[in-house]
Amino acid sequence: MATLIENTINMIKPLDAKAMDKARARQNLLTKPEGSLGRLEDLSIQIAGIQRKTIPVIHHKAVITMAGDHGVVAEGVGNWPQEVTAQMVENFLIGGAGVNVMAKQAGARNIIIDIGVATEMKPNPKLISRKVAPGTGNIAAGPAMTPEQAMKAVETGIEIVNDEIARGLDIVGTGDMGIGNTTASSAVCVAITGRKPSEVTGRGTGISDEQLKHKIAIVEKALAINRPDPSQPLDVLAKVGGLEIGGLAGVMLGSAAQGIPVVIDGFISGAAALIAISLAPQLKDYVIASHVSAEAGHRAMLEYMGLSPLLDLGLRLGEGTGAALGIFLCDTAVKVLSGMSTFAEAGVSESNEE
Amino acid sequence: MATLIENTINMIKPLDAKAMDKARARQNLLTKPEGSLGRLEDLSIQIAGIQRKTIPVIHHKAVITMAGDHGVVAEGVGNWPQEVTAQMVENFLIGGAGVNVMAKQAGARNIIIDIGVATEMKPNPKLISRKVAPGTGNIAAGPAMTPEQAMKAVETGIEIVNDEIARGLDIVGTGDMGIGNTTASSAVCVAITGRKPSEVTGRGTGISDEQLKHKIAIVEKALAINRPDPSQPLDVLAKVGGLEIGGLAGVMLGSAAQGIPVVIDGFISGAAALIAISLAPQLKDYVIASHVSAEAGHRAMLEYMGLSPLLDLGLRLGEGTGAALGIFLCDTAVKVLSGMSTFAEAGVSESNEE
Repeated sequence: MATLIENTINMIKPLDAKAMDKARARQNLLTKPEGSLGRLEDLSIQIAGIQRKTIPVIHHKAVITMAGDHGVVAEGVGNWPQEVTAQMVENFLIGGAGVNVMAKQAGARNIIIDIGVATEMKPNPKLISRKVAPGTGNIAAGPAMTPEQAMKAVETGIEIVNDEIARGLDIVGTGDMGIGNTTASSAVCVAITGRKPSEVTGRGTGISDEQLKHKIAIVEKALAINRPDPSQPLDVLAKVGGLEIGGLAGVMLGSAAQGIPVVIDGFISGAAALIAISLAPQLKDYVIASHVSAEAGHRAMLEYMGLSPLLDLGLRLGEGTGAALGIFLCDTAVKVLSGMSTFAEAGVSESNEE
Repeated sequence: MATLIENTINMIKPLDAKAMDKARARQNLLTKPEGSLGRLEDLSIQIAGIQRKTIPVIHHKAVITMAGDHGVVAEGVGNWPQEVTAQMVENFLIGGAGVNVMAKQAGARNIIIDIGVATEMKPNPKLISRKVAPGTGNIAAGPAMTPEQAMKAVETGIEIVNDEIARGLDIVGTGDMGIGNTTASSAVCVAITGRKPSEVTGRGTGISDEQLKHKIAIVEKALAINRPDPSQPLDVLAKVGGLEIGGLAGVMLGSAAQGIPVVIDGFISGAAALIAISLAPQLKDYVIASHVSAEAGHRAMLEYMGLSPLLDLGLRLGEGTGAALGIFLCDTAVKVLSGMSTFAEAGVSESNEE
C-alpha cells in the first residue's frame, strides 16, 4: 500500500464525541419538541462530530463526479455505446446533465474528473484530466487494471479532494459516469459482501430479462477468472473494479481524513464505499448515504456497511444526482441547528413533561 | 355549503393530460436513461398537469402556516401549555422556528396566519390576522365550532391563498401550529377513514404510554359525543376538527382551483387534506405528500387518500417543515425537466435498446 493511502487512512479519527454531545444538547434547546426533526437532527449531530464543531458550518459544497470506461462493455452488458462516457463528460462541462441541474439546486459546485475515459478528451478548463488509464480491461477476461493502477486511482481521488479542500470545502458528494460500471460495481459487491451475483446484479440503465441473465453470467465469470481477495480491498479494485470506483474511494478517504462529511450517491459510489470502508472501517461514520437506488444490489451494499439511506425516490441515474439531494438535506440539518432559536431566546414555554 | 366553497370546488379541473404527455415525452429526450430520476420525473409530469404547462415553472413558493388553539387541551392530552401556540406564532414572526429556517432553505416565503389562536396577538405586519374564533371548544364535551365557523375557516383559507396567488405563487406548502391539534386530527381521521382511535392516535409532541391511553379515550369520547357525519366533511370539521385544519383545507381547495400544486406537511395537514379531498375528490391529483410523519396515524391517512409520501425522515414537528423539503424536491424536479439538455442538444448517442 502506498504511503499516501496509508497516511490518509491513519488520519481518519473517531468522530468528536464532545462536539456531538454539545450539538445534541443544543438540538434539545431549540423551539421544537425533542427529536421532532428526526433524521435531520441525527444528521446535524453526526456532522458536528465529523467537522469537530458544536455548530457545524456548510458554506462550500461540491459534487465530485469521476468518469471512467470499462472494458467489460465488449461483452454486451448494456445498451449504450462506450463513447457515451466521453459525450456525457462533455455534457457535464456544458452544464446540461442531471448532476449539473441538481448540484446547482443544492448550491454545490461540480467537479468533473477524467480518471479513465477511453476516448481522448479535448482540453477544457472545467475538466480535471487525471487519466490513470484509457479505461479498464475486460473483467470477464482478466483483471480490470494493474495493482499499481488501482493504487494510483485511489491516490488520485485523495489528491483531487485535497485540492478541493484547499479551495474551500465543507461537504462533498460523490458521483460517477462510466458506461459498463454497474457490472463492475456488482462484481465488487459480490467480492466484498459475499452475496450472489444474481442478488446484486441489476438492470443498470435499463436492460431486458435476457440481457440481465447474460450480465449476471458475466459477473460470475469475472469473479471466477479473477478470484479477487476480499481481505485485500485494493486487490478487489484491481481485479474487478473501475478507475472511477477507485478514485471515488480515494475521495471518501481523503475527505474523512480532513474532517469533511462525504455524501455518497448510488450503486457505483456504493461500490467505492465498500472498498474504502474495507480499507478503513472508521471511515463509515463520515459517510452519509444520500439515497437507496432503484438498482438491485444497492440496498445490500448499504446494509453490509450499516448505512441508512436518507431518500428512497427510485433514482438510478448516478453522476452524483442523489448525492446533490443529500447535500441539500445535510445543509438544511445544519442550518436548523445553527439558525433556530432556543426556547430562552424566543420566550417560548417548555414542555412540562419533566 | 357556502358559495365561495362550492365555486372553488367547481373550478378544480382534471389535470391537463396533454401537458403531462408532453412533459413525459420531454423527460424521455433528456440526457439520462428513461425513468432514471424516478419520483422526480413523476413529480415534474404531475406538476405539468397541475400547472397546465408542458414545462412547468416554479419561481414563487410559499409555506402557509395556520395557527389555532384547541379547547381539548383542558383534558390534559399533551404536555405543552396552550400559550405556546401564541408564543410559537411570535417565534415564526421573528424567524426563529424550524419552518422559518426550512422554508428559507427551499426559497419559499413564510405566510403566518392567526385563524384561531386563543391568545390575543399583538399586531404585526408579518402576521395575517383572520381569527375565526379564539380557539375551538373542547371536543370531548361538545363540538369544536359552529357549522358557520367551519365554513368561515375553509373560506378564510381560500381567500388567503387567493391573496397569495395575486402576489405570485407557483407552488404552496401547508403547515400548522396549535397545541392540542394532533388530538383533533386523530378524531378527524377516525371520522373519515373509519379507523379505530387506537390505530390513529399518536404521541404528538411526546407523551408517555399512560398519557397516550388517556388521549385515545378522549378521541373516543369526542366521536361518541359529537357523532360527526363522515359523508359531510364540513360536519366532521365542525364537530371534531380545528380552525387551522379548516383553513388549510381551504388553502388546498383554493390552490387546486387556480392550478397550483399543494405540498402537504404531516398529520395536521393530513387531517385537512382528508376534509378537503372528501369535499372535492378531484383535488387529490393536486396534492403532493411531502413526507410520512412519525406520528402514528399519518400513514393511514395517506393510504386512505392514495398519496405516496416523498420522504420518510421521522419528522413530526409540523409548521410546514416537511412541506418545505417537499417544495425543494418539486422545484428540483421541475428544474430537471426545464434545465437538462436533450440528447440532440448535447450530442450524446442514445441507447440502442430499440
